[in-house]
Amino acid sequence: MQEKKIILIGFGNVARAFSRLLTAKQALLQTQYGFSTHIIGIATAHHGSALAPEGIDAEAAIALVSAGQSLDSLSTQPVPASIIDLIRTSRADVLFENSPVNHATGQPAIEHLRLGLECGMDVITANKGPVVHAYRELTDLALSQKRRFLFESAVMDGAPIFSLFRGPLPAIEVKGFSGVLNSTTNFILGLMEQGMSFDAAVKESQAVGLAETDPSADIDGWDAAIKVAALATVILGQPLTPEQVDRTGIRGITAEMIRSAQQADERWKLVCRAQRVGDQLLTKVAPERVKADTPFYSINGSSSYVQFETDVLPGLGIVESNPGPTTTAYGLLADLINAVRHG
Amino acid sequence: MQEKKIILIGFGNVARAFSRLLTAKQALLQTQYGFSTHIIGIATAHHGSALAPEGIDAEAAIALVSAGQSLDSLSTQPVPASIIDLIRTSRADVLFENSPVNHATGQPAIEHLRLGLECGMDVITANKGPVVHAYRELTDLALSQKRRFLFESAVMDGAPIFSLFRGPLPAIEVKGFSGVLNSTTNFILGLMEQGMSFDAAVKESQAVGLAETDPSADIDGWDAAIKVAALATVILGQPLTPEQVDRTGIRGITAEMIRSAQQADERWKLVCRAQRVGDQLLTKVAPERVKADTPFYSINGSSSYVQFETDVLPGLGIVESNPGPTTTAYGLLADLINAVRHG
Repeated sequence: MQEKKIILIGFGNVARAFSRLLTAKQALLQTQYGFSTHIIGIATAHHGSALAPEGIDAEAAIALVSAGQSLDSLSTQPVPASIIDLIRTSRADVLFENSPVNHATGQPAIEHLRLGLECGMDVITANKGPVVHAYRELTDLALSQKRRFLFESAVMDGAPIFSLFRGPLPAIEVKGFSGVLNSTTNFILGLMEQGMSFDAAVKESQAVGLAETDPSADIDGWDAAIKVAALATVILGQPLTPEQVDRTGIRGITAEMIRSAQQADERWKLVCRAQRVGDQLLTKVAPERVKADTPFYSINGSSSYVQFETDVLPGLGIVESNPGPTTTAYGLLADLINAVRHG
Repeated sequence: MQEKKIILIGFGNVARAFSRLLTAKQALLQTQYGFSTHIIGIATAHHGSALAPEGIDAEAAIALVSAGQSLDSLSTQPVPASIIDLIRTSRADVLFENSPVNHATGQPAIEHLRLGLECGMDVITANKGPVVHAYRELTDLALSQKRRFLFESAVMDGAPIFSLFRGPLPAIEVKGFSGVLNSTTNFILGLMEQGMSFDAAVKESQAVGLAETDPSADIDGWDAAIKVAALATVILGQPLTPEQVDRTGIRGITAEMIRSAQQADERWKLVCRAQRVGDQLLTKVAPERVKADTPFYSINGSSSYVQFETDVLPGLGIVESNPGPTTTAYGLLADLINAVRHG
């Protein structure tokens, strides 16, 4: 039985759900995939850090952080002051990077992932920043280190998107894609259909934990644009930053526009599009009125959707309904299993 | 460069599209996947058979069959009288079984696939019969022969369904699924929404090549039921025959029912369902009125859809739009590449 020692950088909702999922699936990992896991380190920006080579109890760590206390008390050895030094001295096999996304630079996640690979770890993240800003570098480094850089949860949580093109869809030529990739704007537009004002809908989306205190990353289309950039970079092999995406958010959508669409059995959605035209890639994020005859129409609440146009499958769509932290955590688990079993 | 010698059992639309796709993707197979292919044998029930170890030209074979002529003239060596003997003496590496589906027994496809495996070939099929009637036997035989039995195209053409659960979705518990899996009934119900009578819609679906001369396999729900049985057998690990599925076709759907649904912004679809309840699996194929808020509503024409309910992804749906023979052929090609690269 192989033992995989894990360190978690960041311990927010997703990392906590992941640590619980690891416990819940532990017996299956051992019997079906031939390895066990121990979380030996957790590093956070605001809740301290812990290192314990014999394993950290996930529930104890969650209880401490939920109570606003530091993780330090779980350490059984001195913890380096910096996350960098913690990674370097941890002797872990797999690093999970779940710090908040930085749309502009992808840092400090890129630095953590690079160091993890340099130390011989597989590195896994749900963070779009490193995918957009360092995909080539980290993928090449992983290859030269005979390790993996995986990030299934970076787009559409745990729904299989990147792994679909690594495995089940060989020798396919992707010509473009379109989708509804930002949950928060989709949720806001749905509330507006129920008669809520734009401002009230934004407040409600903050209250349920979808939108951030500063909601502009969602409503101005930045989150959608970085997802377009991530899909273009990895699946279309066309490096792209969020700034290069033609981007319009949903601030211009009025109650009147919502009503007018409803009267025609249509809905406003923040639609993402990418299309190869010659050797150019045209990418766009903008509100569109979609008809009931398209899958876009039925993607409501926090659900999301992407469809790929390829040379051999005219339209292949993936729907993800009702995601939660466990959905994202599952993407991290799938990456872990695939890193271990495919070396 | 590995060379893979291929024999094709059956040379209908799908096999012809596959042989063209092999030609079109040949350079990619060689540069990206490190192998080349030669079709060294084609066996048909009504168009003769050919064996040529140095390779058969796909376009020449298609031209002969399209002109109603026998393939025999393409042979460069004596061809055994029976398909069984042809398989046995072919010395091929990969066998593709594309004979017509036999819902009741899966024969003679099962016999061809079994023999192929016994002769040390990887075996690949788009035929649902062997999946439903011999999945366990052929999978175990493949394992003991260190070969593969793959059948991605058996459900939803080339859309990745079975390979999704082999690769991208490890350690997942599938609780059930639902979908629109039969194109012909979906096409017929769509024509009825445009005002056509049931009988006229059936005739039209025959005219465009979707329904068979005897349309009962589609309109009585047998095709949908065998797809439910295939998904249950492979993905839920619950062996099931089409006869065990609670099955109602679309003969009872009247023009009045179609109109009444339309007035409520709903549509009739032949919906497939499977649900674990305790240690039982409840399966059903029946017409349902679906709302515009569900992905089912937007699955029109010959498109299809399946969504899986699992322990970690509340809803994961796959949409396949506008399939054609190349779509199914692509599933065969993906199986071939995955058989070669994962051994």
